[in-house]
Amino acid sequence: MLVLYYAPDTCALATHIALEDAGAEYDLRRIDFKKQEQRALDYLAINPKGRVPALACTQGILTETPAMLAYVAQLHPEAHLAPLDDPFAFAQLQAFNSYICSSLHVAHAHRMRGDRWVDDEEAITAMQRKVPVSVGACYAYIEEHEFAGPFVMGESYTIADPYLFTLFQWIEEDGVDPTEFPKIVAHREMMLQRKPVQTALREELKGARA
Amino acid sequence: MLVLYYAPDTCALATHIALEDAGAEYDLRRIDFKKQEQRALDYLAINPKGRVPALACTQGILTETPAMLAYVAQLHPEAHLAPLDDPFAFAQLQAFNSYICSSLHVAHAHRMRGDRWVDDEEAITAMQRKVPVSVGACYAYIEEHEFAGPFVMGESYTIADPYLFTLFQWIEEDGVDPTEFPKIVAHREMMLQRKPVQTALREELKGARA
Repeated sequence: MLVLYYAPDTCALATHIALEDAGAEYDLRRIDFKKQEQRALDYLAINPKGRVPALACTQGILTETPAMLAYVAQLHPEAHLAPLDDPFAFAQLQAFNSYICSSLHVAHAHRMRGDRWVDDEEAITAMQRKVPVSVGACYAYIEEHEFAGPFVMGESYTIADPYLFTLFQWIEEDGVDPTEFPKIVAHREMMLQRKPVQTALREELKGARA
Repeated sequence: MLVLYYAPDTCALATHIALEDAGAEYDLRRIDFKKQEQRALDYLAINPKGRVPALACTQGILTETPAMLAYVAQLHPEAHLAPLDDPFAFAQLQAFNSYICSSLHVAHAHRMRGDRWVDDEEAITAMQRKVPVSVGACYAYIEEHEFAGPFVMGESYTIADPYLFTLFQWIEEDGVDPTEFPKIVAHREMMLQRKPVQTALREELKGARA
């Protein structure tokens, strides 16, 4: 049985959706950031990074969304969430998810998590000022170069789709006008119609399943 | 034939070493940052991100080091550079490389590439001040939690090794004392004895192979 450690409104949503897409058997454990549970000793024993998501598997703990998403796809090949038999197509998919993780999510993190990279209050404010530009540039790149449509990788739904959807949930708060990216907006609307997305969002709202 | 677009002293070195490890047939194309070749139209046609590395393959272009490394491993299964038959072990390896890409490399990038996230000169200086702390924290995490030894993943050499080695080349310039991380220092020394590492470093020094 897989257990997904998550907090609402974090990138854990991507793996949550993928688990639903895969029809996986899993349980959810909510980590309450307001209570600083991500820094509590019992959680640090699970994920010493002190962040979500983490995925407890039979063999151990996984972290890092691109790795977790690919694992869900490999564990459930019947769900066809990644081109597992085509190393080049799989690498393209991994490259997209790596870009989300290391460029788009990092640009976004400068709005709320600036203290990872500076101590100075004015510098944190300066970072926040540039978030609309840096996040917007990532979406412009994706819209122009990486979005095959109707899904990220083209005709087939993959683990890139819940990851892009998850980050795009934050675009308005990042101060970026989503209408500049009509393909990604259409993708969001399509994603919101999918049952796995609806299930994951609903479960996040109500908290951990008992 | 694969073609690796690289610049010396960048994270392209990781893929370069992995290509040597794999015994791959490949060619090198050096991109001269001093001439801003990474922003030239002919290179942007290859990699619209305007960065290195990029790997030209028969089917198209790959970017993002974690994806390129996994692709080299999958293309050359006989080189045993990744646990390709064990999805969980493969995911752990991907998680490590994802952490290097999105946490360690990002922390490092605040020293030289601060203008990605702020415009203000003082904020750039404030970022640079914190690099020893943020980069050091990443290495402390790796040393304590992610380094099985003697290689990153344990007894077997994998694509995690050239990636860690590449970033660790910069630790002194990042203002971090490497002796705090004896396991990673020993790893660097062992890596420097490996022929693929020596070949890649030598080729970077002399520039593109004709």
